[in-house]
Amino acid sequence: MKKPTWVIDKERARRAASAQTIWLFGLHAVRDALENPARERLRLVVTLNAADRLAPAIAASGMEPEIVDPRKFPAVLDPGSVHQGAALEVKPLDWGPVEQACAPGQGAPRVVLLDRVTDPHNVGAILRSAEVFGARAVIGTLRHSAPETGALAKTASGALERQPYLRVRNLAEAMERLRGMGYVLLGLDGEAEIRLDQAAGEAAGRPLGLVLGAEGPGLRERTRETCDRLVRIDAAGAFGSLNVSNAAAIALYESRAR
Amino acid sequence: MKKPTWVIDKERARRAASAQTIWLFGLHAVRDALENPARERLRLVVTLNAADRLAPAIAASGMEPEIVDPRKFPAVLDPGSVHQGAALEVKPLDWGPVEQACAPGQGAPRVVLLDRVTDPHNVGAILRSAEVFGARAVIGTLRHSAPETGALAKTASGALERQPYLRVRNLAEAMERLRGMGYVLLGLDGEAEIRLDQAAGEAAGRPLGLVLGAEGPGLRERTRETCDRLVRIDAAGAFGSLNVSNAAAIALYESRAR
Repeated sequence: MKKPTWVIDKERARRAASAQTIWLFGLHAVRDALENPARERLRLVVTLNAADRLAPAIAASGMEPEIVDPRKFPAVLDPGSVHQGAALEVKPLDWGPVEQACAPGQGAPRVVLLDRVTDPHNVGAILRSAEVFGARAVIGTLRHSAPETGALAKTASGALERQPYLRVRNLAEAMERLRGMGYVLLGLDGEAEIRLDQAAGEAAGRPLGLVLGAEGPGLRERTRETCDRLVRIDAAGAFGSLNVSNAAAIALYESRAR
Repeated sequence: MKKPTWVIDKERARRAASAQTIWLFGLHAVRDALENPARERLRLVVTLNAADRLAPAIAASGMEPEIVDPRKFPAVLDPGSVHQGAALEVKPLDWGPVEQACAPGQGAPRVVLLDRVTDPHNVGAILRSAEVFGARAVIGTLRHSAPETGALAKTASGALERQPYLRVRNLAEAMERLRGMGYVLLGLDGEAEIRLDQAAGEAAGRPLGLVLGAEGPGLRERTRETCDRLVRIDAAGAFGSLNVSNAAAIALYESRAR
């Protein structure tokens, strides 16, 4: 009996996902990944100098590094990558389903939802802020979001190893699931009537989802409609707009537990 | 009579400064610079397509564009520059001395001081936040700070044309001048005892200088000593650190007039 097409498709997708690997690079990112027990590691390529500087982390990881000549560093990286003589091939981290990563538990949890934010520098900075302000997770879209790459890991400066970063097929659906778990969903929109600080104050003590769109297009229609409230960051100037990672940092700061 | 060496040096420095030009690129950055009456413009190089899209701004500027073939775009730009068929050679903007750009005047002015922040993406994002939150100026160091470049202009997304960005030879000296003008100088430091929101509350209504260092090294010794107070951003997490532009955005937000 032949397998139905959808089963074949699903198996193929699963094989593709498990085949997907990423090259992390740079001393900081490689060290953090070596020290992360949850990280599945495949190959470690280092110069003698980098092996020396990473010695404790390499020993702890139990990996056998491949030592290479600095002038012949592997071509797997982009030519512009500042690799500092260290590259590590890994599998993406699996943070499990939204229900698990965002389980309200204790305190007043926050989750950051990103509607098609593509720039890895911005997503990396957002992961750092999410970690600093203790957010449960950052959730992006599977398509049109910055994937977990070496460039993202580098700008995340270690936060990628520790801060859950989930990517979902359908953002509005993930928002509905969060709402079902008790989250209040605040969408950031420069034109909104309500101020972020008012809305965050009113939702104090409740789980909060902070939803941000890409610069330019902003939140998509369906994302906007799925928010409980649209809020704006209170600002003095009449001109300009905030970088998305800066808006996320302010939203996390303003909604922190006090 | 021969000129003394210091006069010759000074004249040479002035000639070098006036000879310095920058290539701005990308439709957004070029349009904003064409529309800025304070911007001294030298050459405009565009594809036919870009000339079309920039037509009103080009007409308003009175410039004669050089139309080029998209495949032969000038080599003055970095190969990685996303120029969108538009490049404009300009002189750096002159925002005048600190006393002028930061004159307290009305309201509760804020100035952002950057101690050797080199990454143009960070400085660009900070210029945007400074504009949104109505800061008087952003002040960097002449050396070891991101210079006014095309990459900075692009990440500043127009703010470079409108938000004063001064670069000074000696940051501590500029801080002393600000103090003489009535500014309270708050240095951001993750280890500080006092919280930013406390210090900003206590200084409410007074001119405020927000001093940030580069990631990693932080504030230099002399910069720290010249601050009136060192403050930290109140955070929930025990791990990680904020990207410098995110820290600046939070500091500007927290110290806004309410």
